[in-house]
Formats: sequence, C-alpha cells, structure tokens
Amino acid sequence: MPVGTLAAVKALDPDDLTQMGATMILANAYHLHLRPGDEIVHAMGGLHSFMRWNRPILTDSGGFQVFSLARLRTINEDGVEFQSHIDGSKRFFTPESVMRIERNLGADVIMQFDHVIPGQSDEPSARDASERSIRWLERCLAEVKQLDAQDRATAAMHAPADHTATRQHSKPNRLIAPRQALFPIVQGGIHGNLRREAATSIASMRDWAGFGIGGLSVGEEKEAMYAMLDIASEALPAGRPRYLMGVGFPEDLVEGIRRGVDLFDCVAPTRMGRNGTVFTPEGRLNIKRTEFRTDPRPLDADCECSACARFTRAYIRHLFVSDEILGLRLLSLHNVHFLLSLARSARQAIKRGDFDSWSRDWLLRYRAATPIAV
Amino acid sequence: MPVGTLAAVKALDPDDLTQMGATMILANAYHLHLRPGDEIVHAMGGLHSFMRWNRPILTDSGGFQVFSLARLRTINEDGVEFQSHIDGSKRFFTPESVMRIERNLGADVIMQFDHVIPGQSDEPSARDASERSIRWLERCLAEVKQLDAQDRATAAMHAPADHTATRQHSKPNRLIAPRQALFPIVQGGIHGNLRREAATSIASMRDWAGFGIGGLSVGEEKEAMYAMLDIASEALPAGRPRYLMGVGFPEDLVEGIRRGVDLFDCVAPTRMGRNGTVFTPEGRLNIKRTEFRTDPRPLDADCECSACARFTRAYIRHLFVSDEILGLRLLSLHNVHFLLSLARSARQAIKRGDFDSWSRDWLLRYRAATPIAV
Repeated sequence: MPVGTLAAVKALDPDDLTQMGATMILANAYHLHLRPGDEIVHAMGGLHSFMRWNRPILTDSGGFQVFSLARLRTINEDGVEFQSHIDGSKRFFTPESVMRIERNLGADVIMQFDHVIPGQSDEPSARDASERSIRWLERCLAEVKQLDAQDRATAAMHAPADHTATRQHSKPNRLIAPRQALFPIVQGGIHGNLRREAATSIASMRDWAGFGIGGLSVGEEKEAMYAMLDIASEALPAGRPRYLMGVGFPEDLVEGIRRGVDLFDCVAPTRMGRNGTVFTPEGRLNIKRTEFRTDPRPLDADCECSACARFTRAYIRHLFVSDEILGLRLLSLHNVHFLLSLARSARQAIKRGDFDSWSRDWLLRYRAATPIAV
Repeated sequence: MPVGTLAAVKALDPDDLTQMGATMILANAYHLHLRPGDEIVHAMGGLHSFMRWNRPILTDSGGFQVFSLARLRTINEDGVEFQSHIDGSKRFFTPESVMRIERNLGADVIMQFDHVIPGQSDEPSARDASERSIRWLERCLAEVKQLDAQDRATAAMHAPADHTATRQHSKPNRLIAPRQALFPIVQGGIHGNLRREAATSIASMRDWAGFGIGGLSVGEEKEAMYAMLDIASEALPAGRPRYLMGVGFPEDLVEGIRRGVDLFDCVAPTRMGRNGTVFTPEGRLNIKRTEFRTDPRPLDADCECSACARFTRAYIRHLFVSDEILGLRLLSLHNVHFLLSLARSARQAIKRGDFDSWSRDWLLRYRAATPIAV
C-alpha cells in the first residue's frame, strides 16, 4: 500500500498510482485529524471523494504517531492525552474517539487504537502495552458496532441519503462506506510469548476480517522481527489477510511474504525517492552521484515505470541537483512502481507454486549486489 | 510557451504539457550553461532528447539573466564578464560564445545575445544598449552561419551521423536540429524613437524567421509597454512571428495579441501556482484562504484541466496548507492550462474575425471581477 498520510501519496498524482496498478492505499487518522480535520473530510464526502481515490483505503489509527510524534503524552487506561506536533494544542485520544475519527474519514479498513512502545522495551512494559491494546480493541469494536447502528438508524430515517449537499459539483461520487472492516493489531514487542498470547487472545474474540501486526521495524534487529513474524503467522487463523504495519523495504517485503504477510505499507519509496535514492533489483543507488552526469541509461534497465520508460539517469540527476520538483516525482514514481511490481512478482510466484525458489533467488541478487552507494 | 528554464517546466511532467496542448516551450541558455552545462546536454543528444520533448523548443540567450541575476558584471564591446549566481565562478559571455552554447542545447529557435538594461533607463543608456545589441546581433548571425557550415562539413565527413553513441538506450530519438532559427531582439527601453529605429534597422538586415521584443515588463508602466508594442508592431514586417519576451499575465496576453504579438513566455503560471495563486476568468484567487476549507467547487467552474476535472478547492487548499507536492503540481497545471486555453480562444476569435469584441469582453470580465484576493 503506497502511503498517503495526509490524503495524498507524496509527490504523486492519484492517476500515477492507478496507472501503476496500486489497489489499496493508506492514510493516517492522527495526521488527518489535525489537518484538515476529520470533520472536514467527512463534510467533503469522506476520503475517497476528498482525494478522488475509488479503490480501497486503509486508515491507521494514529497510535504509532501519538507515541512517536506527539509531545507530552499522558497515558492512562482511558486513553492518551498529548500535544499536537503542529501547533502544540492539547488533544485526548481514546479508543472510542479514534473510531469516530476513522468513521469520519470513511476508509474501507480501519485500524484499532493501540498502545505502541519502543522496539526494544522489556517484557513487563511490552506486556502492559499489549494487554492494554487488547482491552482497547474491545472498546474499539463496541464503538464501531454502535456507530454502525447509528448509521443504519440515520439512513432509515432520511432515506434517500441526505449526503448529496456536501458532494462535489455534479460528479459521480462514492458513498461513504456504510461499514468498515476493523483490524485488530497484534503487539508484544520482541517477546515471542507475548506475541503468541496476543495473537491467540485476539483471534479468539471473533472472526476478524484481517489482522495487523504492529510494533515491528521500530529499531529492533531484523532477526527479531522475522522471529516475531513466524510466531504471529503460526498463531493467526489462515485465510485472513495479515498486515505488517510500517514495513518495508524491498527485502522486507520478500521476507515478510515468506512468513505469510499479505499487506505492507511504508513511507520508504516516496521518502527515499525525495532524497534521491533509487530501488533497483541490484540494490539501491543514489542518483546525485557525479558518475551519473552523462549516464544515458534509465534508472533500472528492467523497469517499465514511466520514469524509466522516458528519462536517463543524467536527466534525473540534473533535476535533483537543480531542485526541480519533477525529479521528486519521477523517483517517487519509480520506487513505488518497484515495490508494487515486486509484490506482483511474488503473487505470480505463489500462484506458480515456486515462491520459495523465486524469493531465494531474488534476495540473493538484491543482497549480493555491490551497494552502488546510497 | 510554458517556461522550462532548467529543461523542466517547474512542478510539471512533459506528459502534462502534451495533454494540455502545449506546443513550443522555453529553456534558458544562461541557466543550462551553469547547470548541468551545455556540453552535457549536447552529449546527451540535445535538449529535445535530454528532456524528452519532441515539439519545438526556444532558448533564451541568457542576456536577461546575465544583467539581472549574475553578480559583478563588466560590460565591454566584446561581451560581458560576470560571476555565476550558483557558485560565484567567473564567466565571460560574448555573442559568439552564447551562440555556441545555444547550438549545444539544440533548440529550434535561439535568441540573440543582447544587452538588457533596467526598464526605466534614460535615453542615452537605452540607445547605447540598443545599438550594442544590434552590433552583437550581427556577430551572432555570423557565428551561427559559421556553426552551420561546420556542421555541414562534419555531417559530410562522418555520414551516417556518429551521434548514436550518446543516445538514450535503444529508443527513437530526435536528431539535433541541423539548423536553428536565430531571432533578433528589438530593444530600446521605453523610448519610442529607439524602438522604431531598432525595429527598422534589424528588419532591414535580412528576412528573419521571427522577432523578439525584449526589455519590457521589467518595471515600466503597463501603458508604456503597450505604446512600445504598438510602435514595434508597426515597424516590423507582417507575416513573421513576434515574440514578447518574459510576458505575461493573462491580461498581458490579450493586450499583446491585440498589438500583433504571437509568442509569449512567463514564469507566472508556475511560480504563482507554487505560491497558491490561481488564474480564473474572474481574476485571481488565493487557494490558501480559510473560506475554501470546505468549498466543494473546482478552482474554476469553466476549466477542463485535470485539476479542475477532479479536485475540489477544499482538497487543493488542504494540500497547500499541508505542504504536499501534489498541490504545487495541480495549481501549476491549472495556471498553464489557463494560459494555453486563453491563447487558443484568442486564435479562434481571430479566425472567426471577431477578436476585437472577444478581447474587449474578456478584459472587461477579468478586470471587473472583485479581486477575490491574492
């Protein structure tokens, strides 16, 4: 899922994403609550209408942002008080208020509000946060059920729906999804027993539409992340999508898929693109290097993205060195295309039944490459 | 002509421009000489190949930049010594060296190197600069003829052309234009007699493919600019395009066309777009204003650009307030589309034979509008 934190995938146009075959994209409840405000997004017909994206959207609850970006947090069982990182204004998030924010945004999949802790927290802190997240999950579910009931009642009273006034001038618009799939999040830090307990406990609550796996790729060793994935994978029911939150880089996608993960999101392709870093099957390269000044090759000879189909490394390097916005767009486009295309290849390998050998070969080639220097 | 100073129209993709019906675009010899270097553009097959633009390109000589942007200028009859505004390095431009730079860039139309002075210079300074520009024009022409002769000789020796090595990997590329049209520039400040003398003197030199009118829109009153245009228009031969350099805003286009101008360029649509200012038939509006927070209308109800066809003012305002790059692209796109579409309407009115009434009505509507505030 390309990441559109603030209802836009940075440096890209929704049409670029459609052309590249993106299906589901991500947005963020914390950020959109602060700017432009979830009430405003609701008034504009919800996220799909607001940002003109007719395919699925997932909103993260903002748990991660509250615990990493916001200032002066006070956590208690009810929720979290914090200061906005934009203007320092005081805010209070509870599982219930976050569900209302995500309802206003109107994404197809909404993540529970959870208690996120640093990657290497000790077991007592990790247990405390994980168990609180499960209690908060129950409150999220109750709130979603109540919002659903309210929406049904409102729809019955006002049929046909009275949302039209806020819709964009005479253009077909998608209705706000009447129901949203709530995904729980498996926490537990780098403690296998906590991960297993959380997965088992959450899975026994109900037949969830899918599962988030959170609190990984936040500073712990890669091996620890893989071990946690193996454990969660074993404990979660088959046949339901698993979403590894905030991951990842190309190699993480392949390693994650090996361990049963179905959904990923990461700001890396657009953020690294804006820094001049390019994903290729032979590892990363930094377009700003002098050696590319007259390089007539595309970023990646095997790539079919609209940057590689048209432009040389020499031109894109020039755009970067000259601070031209087109450079940011072209590298973001290439990197997002690279990950979407990697996921497509993985799906094809799974269908063919040779994912194991495909993924081993892919990782070998990617890792063996001399790092062309980042 | 949308302006692509550094071989990219700021915040836009060449495909955006093609879709909007842009034909000729502009690039700048001064800027491209400094970054990435005209030798590098030449090595990459020239501007068309470098920036993937298969339609006409015009390069400005950089006279304006040398006299406005560069530091510590020393002007003598031979040329201008100055310091690069990028790194302070010392450079020396002569009419001959600038023709070689523009030959390396390979645009279809190249502007002469001229001596540009402040908009309100007195007559003696304006005469000095104008007469020097005409002497420099003769040297530009001689140099272009010599470069043409050299190219013909090289082509004959090495037929078939040996440029292929530097071309982009296995994709069809345009040959470097074997001949470029040199446009003279009519100077003369705000002094009617100087403008008339310059136009007459230049027109008598040879049958030029077209004419630049320079040194306007640089601080003088609008009325003075229109008067100079009337004079130049009368003095220049009919049947050859006239290019009003560095102009303009929507109203300037209409006023210029009334006075016989055929070509315009201006950074305004993209620069103002990046600042949040939107051209509309009712004047300008600033998208950042609070009143647009929940405005469900497009930027301009009559516009068919891909921003107006898809997005609300509310969404684009949100993008601006949140520093999303997509916002810069959408407003640049809209503003460039606005000017291209305005020029199309003017051409249609001319063909219909009612340009006079069309332009009066257009200016009335545009000027009467309450300035929605910029």
